[in-house]
Amino acid sequence: MLTAHKIKILQSLDKKKFRQKYNLFLVEGNKTIKEIPLSRYKIQEIFTINPSELGIDGVKIIEISDSELKKISFLQHPKDSVAVCELLEPKFLADVPIQLVLDGIQDPGNLGTIIRLADWFGIEQIICSEDTVDFYNPKVIQASMGSFLRVNITYQNIENYLQNSTAAIIGTDMDGENFYQFDFPEKFNLILGNEGNGIRPNIEELLTHKITIPRFGKSKSTESLNVSMAAGIILGQIFSEK
Amino acid sequence: MLTAHKIKILQSLDKKKFRQKYNLFLVEGNKTIKEIPLSRYKIQEIFTINPSELGIDGVKIIEISDSELKKISFLQHPKDSVAVCELLEPKFLADVPIQLVLDGIQDPGNLGTIIRLADWFGIEQIICSEDTVDFYNPKVIQASMGSFLRVNITYQNIENYLQNSTAAIIGTDMDGENFYQFDFPEKFNLILGNEGNGIRPNIEELLTHKITIPRFGKSKSTESLNVSMAAGIILGQIFSEK
Repeated sequence: MLTAHKIKILQSLDKKKFRQKYNLFLVEGNKTIKEIPLSRYKIQEIFTINPSELGIDGVKIIEISDSELKKISFLQHPKDSVAVCELLEPKFLADVPIQLVLDGIQDPGNLGTIIRLADWFGIEQIICSEDTVDFYNPKVIQASMGSFLRVNITYQNIENYLQNSTAAIIGTDMDGENFYQFDFPEKFNLILGNEGNGIRPNIEELLTHKITIPRFGKSKSTESLNVSMAAGIILGQIFSEK
Repeated sequence: MLTAHKIKILQSLDKKKFRQKYNLFLVEGNKTIKEIPLSRYKIQEIFTINPSELGIDGVKIIEISDSELKKISFLQHPKDSVAVCELLEPKFLADVPIQLVLDGIQDPGNLGTIIRLADWFGIEQIICSEDTVDFYNPKVIQASMGSFLRVNITYQNIENYLQNSTAAIIGTDMDGENFYQFDFPEKFNLILGNEGNGIRPNIEELLTHKITIPRFGKSKSTESLNVSMAAGIILGQIFSEK
């Protein structure tokens, strides 16, 4: 059973302020929840409509009704279970060969997709500017399809970080070098900018290389590619040489 | 002014049945609306909160209030204008070098993203299976960011189409050839399958080549890439040789 007080706390976890206050966030769906014990994350408790399907030991599991699940789920179509997890103590991996650096990504779907891409390509860490959307946001967690469990995500002043980085700093730019011809070094930072405004001027100044994905369509009206799609296409090309 | 009857008709256009009944669909936002006269599409009328910003001649333009706009817009945050446009007479382009073929894509966001990718890479036509989501769906139109104006989209029995195609038929498969090593022919069909179920067995039988995007991450729990992301990465690689 779920008390009214507990429901109120869980519902508040769609806001960063309350996630930080309670040091908690939610993960939904058995498929991802079953992968949590393989990661650094700790589950506090699981609410589920079907305990027999979970198969997780050593965790407090509470059976709830469909209508209770609807109350605590952030999904339009709630799945089977909701796990209440503790936020991770942030850590920083120095010396990651391909380092994704996000400069003010705002859309939760884009961040989730970028985390999923990083996981696919075996990229260990994403460094986010402090104003990038919080990855514990339920929409990011959902869009990442469990990949947040396998990629280290850290928030920091990226200008400071980049000023101290000895690796190349590569960003996309309308007038950059054709990325098909670009020779990616062994180690680099790949900067992905905000959806509307791109890379901020103070970060752009730190770029050591600018690259462009050429447009093959003839119309100049064509919108530039979405940031997560651009990231996927660039990573696809980088790994063609691996 | 908008009559209650007109509002009812426009609101019904989120359903395929009513789009076909009235032969109409909606395009929102001045940026895309301004590109319509450059395409084959015909505007019937435009409802706008600010006629002076449109700058389109020879079209009936009706000024409406913010609250009226909210009633007819399908967006969570309505933009400036809504154009009521006529459905196009379907046409088919024979002999397109790179032919995208969609087998039951259901998510409007995915179809919109694939249309945008086609536009970026200058791919002229997308052939959709009859059960692929309707591209006049307001969410597809929105996600395509105006690219639907520049890519010919046609619905047909793709099994019949492929049986008669003389070009290679390439699909993604878990056990396919590494796409980085694959030598894409001059002309081919690239099949993109349904989000959950992939390519249908009757279509899979017609494939002449199977390709795979290799996963570089080590975890087997990693979800396969979303279909539109996979399309972007494959197209990115194909065009590296152009």
